[in-house]
Amino acid sequence: MGKVPPVIVLLTDFGLADNYVGVMKGVISHICSQAQVIDLSHGIPPQDIYAASFCLAQSYAYFPNNSIFVAVVDPGVGSSRRAIAVHFADEDRAGWFVGPDNGLGMDLWKQVTIIDAVALTNSSYWLASEPSQTFHGRDIFAPIAAHLASGVPLKELGQALNPPDLVPLKSYPLHREPQRIIGSVVYCDQFGNLVTNIPAAWLVPAAKIETIVYHHRKIPYHSAYSQVPAGSLLGLIGSHNYLEIAVNQGNAQRELQAVIGDPIYLFVDNDKE
Amino acid sequence: MGKVPPVIVLLTDFGLADNYVGVMKGVISHICSQAQVIDLSHGIPPQDIYAASFCLAQSYAYFPNNSIFVAVVDPGVGSSRRAIAVHFADEDRAGWFVGPDNGLGMDLWKQVTIIDAVALTNSSYWLASEPSQTFHGRDIFAPIAAHLASGVPLKELGQALNPPDLVPLKSYPLHREPQRIIGSVVYCDQFGNLVTNIPAAWLVPAAKIETIVYHHRKIPYHSAYSQVPAGSLLGLIGSHNYLEIAVNQGNAQRELQAVIGDPIYLFVDNDKE
Amino acid sequence: MGKVPPVIVLLTDFGLADNYVGVMKGVISHICSQAQVIDLSHGIPPQDIYAASFCLAQSYAYFPNNSIFVAVVDPGVGSSRRAIAVHFADEDRAGWFVGPDNGLGMDLWKQVTIIDAVALTNSSYWLASEPSQTFHGRDIFAPIAAHLASGVPLKELGQALNPPDLVPLKSYPLHREPQRIIGSVVYCDQFGNLVTNIPAAWLVPAAKIETIVYHHRKIPYHSAYSQVPAGSLLGLIGSHNYLEIAVNQGNAQRELQAVIGDPIYLFVDNDKE
Repeated sequence: MGKVPPVIVLLTDFGLADNYVGVMKGVISHICSQAQVIDLSHGIPPQDIYAASFCLAQSYAYFPNNSIFVAVVDPGVGSSRRAIAVHFADEDRAGWFVGPDNGLGMDLWKQVTIIDAVALTNSSYWLASEPSQTFHGRDIFAPIAAHLASGVPLKELGQALNPPDLVPLKSYPLHREPQRIIGSVVYCDQFGNLVTNIPAAWLVPAAKIETIVYHHRKIPYHSAYSQVPAGSLLGLIGSHNYLEIAVNQGNAQRELQAVIGDPIYLFVDNDKE
Repeated sequence: MGKVPPVIVLLTDFGLADNYVGVMKGVISHICSQAQVIDLSHGIPPQDIYAASFCLAQSYAYFPNNSIFVAVVDPGVGSSRRAIAVHFADEDRAGWFVGPDNGLGMDLWKQVTIIDAVALTNSSYWLASEPSQTFHGRDIFAPIAAHLASGVPLKELGQALNPPDLVPLKSYPLHREPQRIIGSVVYCDQFGNLVTNIPAAWLVPAAKIETIVYHHRKIPYHSAYSQVPAGSLLGLIGSHNYLEIAVNQGNAQRELQAVIGDPIYLFVDNDKE
Repeated sequence: MGKVPPVIVLLTDFGLADNYVGVMKGVISHICSQAQVIDLSHGIPPQDIYAASFCLAQSYAYFPNNSIFVAVVDPGVGSSRRAIAVHFADEDRAGWFVGPDNGLGMDLWKQVTIIDAVALTNSSYWLASEPSQTFHGRDIFAPIAAHLASGVPLKELGQALNPPDLVPLKSYPLHREPQRIIGSVVYCDQFGNLVTNIPAAWLVPAAKIETIVYHHRKIPYHSAYSQVPAGSLLGLIGSHNYLEIAVNQGNAQRELQAVIGDPIYLFVDNDKE
């Protein structure tokens, strides 16, 4: 077996109908032919930095050590917003983030330690010294990722940044009381499953959970879809390891007319066994 | 040239908007970095085991020898349905199937010989010993496929199964009389072409085919789209090597309000030359 | 580092819901396991040769030297239209085109020199000597690309063609007068951005551009989305390096009810500084 190829992971709101993603992969292949490129998703709702931030933070730990995450949801492209690259690590792995400095990395920063961060000011690592006004994915972020994969040191790519100077993203409400948890819907997948920001660890032991209330509707808490009839609402710990609201074989977003940011209440009976 | 990299083929109903498929690829890359991952389709209609079974059986023979097919259309995830891995072969190639034991492999089993089958009970080859209740694609099937690609023997993965014990899938009607063939629509592609279960071998010689009847409409039989005007219905042998009903430059599913399982009649005149 | 793997780029109107693209990749992997396959797009509007031609010509230069472009938008499949392979080069790179001879390569031929062209008549390099009537992507174009990637010389693949004999595609109007440019909308991306055939080089210096007129509406010319309020129309040089009409954070196609081929007028004041 040879050396492990570097992994570049792409996350954008570009969709797959146009040539945008394909061209980014061409640019990467040109600069670093041995990189393995993996699509995390290109179906982030257009310009939805929150959804991208959630998706990245939920996913990074499933990728190999030293993966390079290129995340481009970038409503400010062409303005003065910074482009950044960040070297991070948790206990198990290191990785790189490449993308706009618009808060997209926020949910990731909460889970990792930032080792180094730079503003991508060194145009000699861009595709051309004059990037387009509309497509920095191709002109800056893809080539930077490919150069990182080729072994270029982070510090070569631009001016050092202090991590506290990175642009933040406001968090949705999450609050814990002895008998009540108040959280928010933070993501809706394409099947209409509503992911909340209430972590699984807060739902233990399950027997103590009395009921979930969402838009004045009571929703039972279970451990699997199949524990309610087809078409029925339930709360369960989803694959993201947060409380999710779902309809067994159905679409909870439509059923509840849910919107990202909606509050959700969870009542706990601590006297229960 | 080095060794041929192992090929892992993914077939799911997960769509491409969310991070589900990307995360499965991350898990595979982490365990077996040299595997080549190919998407067969992630657009199977949600929970449609029939469509997935047809798609897999129609496709496997185009992939290299020893490809590993991970097929996850899994309405029973989190219930007691078994997870399986199956080693199969036909005259030209061998391969592996990894997925739920819910009938999804049924159309494939008809075309191959099952060499070995196991229930995936050995949790030391899962991503974690306690998989989520909702995403065995990430937690069991992707890691199992990557371990197979790395050379782990099938028998290591769990308890041996007898092939006759695999869960079957009911077949749609298909019946042959001297002057009439009765078949069924078994698949509809995204362009509205209706694929039937009537094999091309039954349509020889073409000159003897009198007419196709579908929902009381007579449809002519031809060898290429271009033999009827744009917008007209025809029957032809499609790329799957079965009788297909199509509209030249149009959508037969919409034109005929067709539904999977619809009966289709084909009349043969054996006196014709 | 080993040898650079050959790159095969796929461009089709097959979509991603069915198994068509996956099967093409299986065929390629079977013949040439070391090829790196990159999806340029499979979302070309069905049978839209113009959109495919534009997409290919806009994209090829971002891929590595010697990339093989398989472009299958093929309304004439099963008819007598020729299948071709073309070796081309510009100042910076060489490449191959594999696809139907229906004009799809036209926008590319304008940017490169054709070195050699053949009709794909040698069936020993097809998947089988009798291809299906409906899916030459699988049966002819994918295997030909894989054989090229494996080093088979172009001349082996069939009869030599004279470049002038390749089927042309009519161009949309583009015309330049001292004070006025008349162009056409030639592509609409999935976000509703309207790409015209007016090259960026004609828009210099920007200060002299007075106004853009489209369907009797006046549209201002700027250098970035963010220079107009959200919801407002603007013209700018897009990432394709042509004049584009867009709505900041909106959809210009819907706003203008635009159709491919629509004329667009640009007025220039040469007395301005």
